[in-house]
Amino acid sequence: MSSPESAAAWKAIAARKQSSRASRIPSKWHIPSSALPKDPPSLENGPQNVLDLPRQFLSSAEIAITEDYTVESLLSALASKKLSCEEVAQAFCHRAAIAHQLTNCLTEPLFDSAVQRAKELDAYLAQNGRPFGPLHGLPVSVKDTFNVKGVDTSIGLAYLCEKPATENAPLVSLLLSLGCVIVAKTNIPQTLASLDSVNNVFGRTMNPINRLCTAGGSSGGEGVLVAMKGSILGIGTDIGGSIRVPAMCNGVYGFKPSNNRIPYGGQALTGREGMSRTSVQAVAGPIARSVRDIDVFLREVIPRATLWAEDCMPCPWPPSSPSSQQIQGSGPNGELVIGILRSDGNCTLLPPITTILNEVAVSLQGTNTRTGAKIVVKELLTPRAWTRSQSVMSKLMGVDGAVVMNHMITSTGEPLVPWMSTRFRAGKAQPLERVAELQAQRSQLEREMLNLWSEVDAHGRRRQTLDAIVCPVAPHPVPPIEGYNAVGMTSSWVLFDYPTGTVPVRSVVEDDLELGRPLPAGNVLGSWDAKCRELWDEHVTDRRVYLGTPLSVQVVVQRGRDDWLCRVMGVIDEVMKSQTQTQSGDVKARL
Amino acid sequence: MSSPESAAAWKAIAARKQSSRASRIPSKWHIPSSALPKDPPSLENGPQNVLDLPRQFLSSAEIAITEDYTVESLLSALASKKLSCEEVAQAFCHRAAIAHQLTNCLTEPLFDSAVQRAKELDAYLAQNGRPFGPLHGLPVSVKDTFNVKGVDTSIGLAYLCEKPATENAPLVSLLLSLGCVIVAKTNIPQTLASLDSVNNVFGRTMNPINRLCTAGGSSGGEGVLVAMKGSILGIGTDIGGSIRVPAMCNGVYGFKPSNNRIPYGGQALTGREGMSRTSVQAVAGPIARSVRDIDVFLREVIPRATLWAEDCMPCPWPPSSPSSQQIQGSGPNGELVIGILRSDGNCTLLPPITTILNEVAVSLQGTNTRTGAKIVVKELLTPRAWTRSQSVMSKLMGVDGAVVMNHMITSTGEPLVPWMSTRFRAGKAQPLERVAELQAQRSQLEREMLNLWSEVDAHGRRRQTLDAIVCPVAPHPVPPIEGYNAVGMTSSWVLFDYPTGTVPVRSVVEDDLELGRPLPAGNVLGSWDAKCRELWDEHVTDRRVYLGTPLSVQVVVQRGRDDWLCRVMGVIDEVMKSQTQTQSGDVKARL
Repeated sequence: MSSPESAAAWKAIAARKQSSRASRIPSKWHIPSSALPKDPPSLENGPQNVLDLPRQFLSSAEIAITEDYTVESLLSALASKKLSCEEVAQAFCHRAAIAHQLTNCLTEPLFDSAVQRAKELDAYLAQNGRPFGPLHGLPVSVKDTFNVKGVDTSIGLAYLCEKPATENAPLVSLLLSLGCVIVAKTNIPQTLASLDSVNNVFGRTMNPINRLCTAGGSSGGEGVLVAMKGSILGIGTDIGGSIRVPAMCNGVYGFKPSNNRIPYGGQALTGREGMSRTSVQAVAGPIARSVRDIDVFLREVIPRATLWAEDCMPCPWPPSSPSSQQIQGSGPNGELVIGILRSDGNCTLLPPITTILNEVAVSLQGTNTRTGAKIVVKELLTPRAWTRSQSVMSKLMGVDGAVVMNHMITSTGEPLVPWMSTRFRAGKAQPLERVAELQAQRSQLEREMLNLWSEVDAHGRRRQTLDAIVCPVAPHPVPPIEGYNAVGMTSSWVLFDYPTGTVPVRSVVEDDLELGRPLPAGNVLGSWDAKCRELWDEHVTDRRVYLGTPLSVQVVVQRGRDDWLCRVMGVIDEVMKSQTQTQSGDVKARL
Repeated sequence: MSSPESAAAWKAIAARKQSSRASRIPSKWHIPSSALPKDPPSLENGPQNVLDLPRQFLSSAEIAITEDYTVESLLSALASKKLSCEEVAQAFCHRAAIAHQLTNCLTEPLFDSAVQRAKELDAYLAQNGRPFGPLHGLPVSVKDTFNVKGVDTSIGLAYLCEKPATENAPLVSLLLSLGCVIVAKTNIPQTLASLDSVNNVFGRTMNPINRLCTAGGSSGGEGVLVAMKGSILGIGTDIGGSIRVPAMCNGVYGFKPSNNRIPYGGQALTGREGMSRTSVQAVAGPIARSVRDIDVFLREVIPRATLWAEDCMPCPWPPSSPSSQQIQGSGPNGELVIGILRSDGNCTLLPPITTILNEVAVSLQGTNTRTGAKIVVKELLTPRAWTRSQSVMSKLMGVDGAVVMNHMITSTGEPLVPWMSTRFRAGKAQPLERVAELQAQRSQLEREMLNLWSEVDAHGRRRQTLDAIVCPVAPHPVPPIEGYNAVGMTSSWVLFDYPTGTVPVRSVVEDDLELGRPLPAGNVLGSWDAKCRELWDEHVTDRRVYLGTPLSVQVVVQRGRDDWLCRVMGVIDEVMKSQTQTQSGDVKARL
């Protein structure tokens, strides 16, 4: 129990921290309180989409810089001096400042140092006649967890505030060495172990598309900042879904790589040091506006990771991506073979999720006339190993008994945030034998999963028969605040170390609200399932809450095939976009 | 303590097992006892090199098949039907049978099934007009630890005898699917944790070059069988040096890959299942007659590993190797930059080891006129992390307290073999917190090692400055039986997960025995160092014991760069061989 004194401790620290944060938003970038969305969010106030609101406060040049470029074209404009690093950094910082005022997405605005760094890069280019590095001037953001020298890595815990990092995380050093400009660090949930980005120090990050729904987590601030174009690309981390979930919630692309691809070290410790090497490891990865942006970024970062980070392996990245037409899959005629996985056996899919999977399956099948992609779609039976993986994963994530986290929370008298209050339990570390037992179970599940990807012939030779999986990110759409339920569909792929990414497909429209009316009864698969059903049960949830939120799918490939995941996400995205174009073409034709 | 009954248990099992093994050596392949070397080995009997002795009992065709081919040329002869799989299998099985009678290198002769399999491959080729797979008919051997369906995986423990495996290890399935023929399983030490391949079930494997010295371990049988040409390539496993040490002892090439490259699963468990995923993992890798043989073999195996094994990652292997002349290193003009590491700070190098390192350093430096290789050699200061890694590694290897192994040994009343008797200590598993602490120390050491490979410029950008390391395999030459001392120079690289290999350079000659006479006193670095010095101290060891044994070096590259290791080992081997040729040319010229 915390004494009144220690209770005061976290509050005083949080107040100082918030005030320091506010002081780093230049007053010229403040927006009038009349422009702010109405609190509290309610159905009466509507979703209050603020995605495009920053445009009102930006110059046309700033709008162009922050909206009209891809990573590739921005780099090209910077390298050719069409744009200066300084004006690009200014524009993104300005937009990030506005995004923050609308959603509370930042923990550490780094606008001064970003502009300073941008000026140095401009000077370097002027002096040397060549860019500083392959990502010269690229404005990026990083999750609060990453150490940036001289800046707190508080992860929203009072205990960690006002202890600035003494050196950069290896990934930060790598990004800087490539020429990136870091505009801000972004908000996360208390403990990093929930899917709503809220903590006692910085408060809650709001979803800019629909304020009734969650912004997701744990890289929630990143998802929001990238969706609002306050940085061109952001770095999150993921163990249960913390990159893919906020990407889903904010309608952007999230990429969870395999382990040992992107430097992970140099982040705030949420548990005992070294513990993750005994159990299961989180990874760092990008959240971005397009697959192509992710591809161009990772092509520069991943092959250089081993220079900076002891936790990375060499991973060549093909110098250029084949087009959708050129891509060779394992189908009989080189088709890409994509399997559809539906329920994981732990939660029934809610009707809009089944619908979006159906739409994707139908759109992908066959030769796409616009993109030239040749795809065979096959429905997969839910592997027993996928169903079981969720339980093994959740046990492995908890082997340390949350001892360190509990100490950090209680030492300043912090209360638990709402979602954690019923779920956080501190205990003690498991015996090594138990951890070994879980690891053995994990190996067994991994072995079982092999049979999903290949087949053995009569002579005992194996042949690849599946190239990628499409499955839901969650069994439910982007839920109301505090409503995120099951993470099994994201966390399981971390257990298997499969790279996976989120691809947004379309938004929830009025028609979707009619799906499953009345909700079919079906067999309740367990307590998670019961909770999940409430999200589409009109006795519990007003479905209008979902209007405008993104519907996304998850794309999954085999361990270590990260460049392949990028290819497949690109093909799927291109085909789905071509369908939308075709449909609108049809609509136009019919008008 | 074991009762007389249980003491009888292991003896009876071992007797049955030895008799079963003997029955699988066809009587037509028995060699007369007069041909056997004299026991016990002694300086009076001399080294009794039996490497070439099998030739006396083989037909000229069998000698040609087992001696005149590389992996590549043998595969080509098999695919073109110049040789049948059956005659190749017969020849290698015959030679393996003789090698075994001379050295006791096999645990499970698999001659019948090998010839049967070879016939099936011949039939397949005849019927289909194409080879079964890219390794069609290649005769290989595997360490006893690998499961082969229907055969014991006893690893020399009575407890595990007479329990045939119910399925193949993934690596065995993979090898069979590529067309390999498995001629035998090979001998190992009790517990697999020592460097002399001796156990109570199968006895001791002898070094075929010099019976006074150890055959090495734990893949000792593999080292011997490959050196005696009883298989063209063998698969060992390595955590402390168990591939590289027997390669050194028997004058062949050993390749310890990075983790997740070659399927490791499906082997005898020496500890609790899943334990290695919490601590440190052994790897499987080839022992062979040449670097080129290893290259050709791995090129087929590694890219297909993920089809069969949950413990592998994709690892493309370049389709063809650049020549020594073409290889591009990180030197200012593309030179290969090779660092020389000498003492690890735990043991002083004995004079012949310093000498062989000097010879290699001098030979490698500069442009080699015969091979065209351009190399910059630099002497490296011993990194603190390398010195410290040995202790962390040995603690991580012991976290399970040897509980399972102790149970297996004691349950049939087996005594410990001599080397283990003073070193094997069963205890209990460490607390998880302690294992996490060791893993944190490991990460810290890994981070420190990064600075060996690259440098940061004034602008904070990193550049590779080192391509490979040459260091000793051990601080001493191939020691007398039971004399193997320090494994720090091999085990440390497993802690770092660096791929490393053994390259034999030349044999110990009379002149070498004069080195360090008298032995310089120097500072004794610790108990391992004191023990090591005895191996060259004439008051303790008669140096003549070393005559004819191989002197080798270890080549080390960064984690995950396995194909690069193969390239660099090839260049070093080629340059050293060209030197020998030049020297013999000079000698001839002078005659």
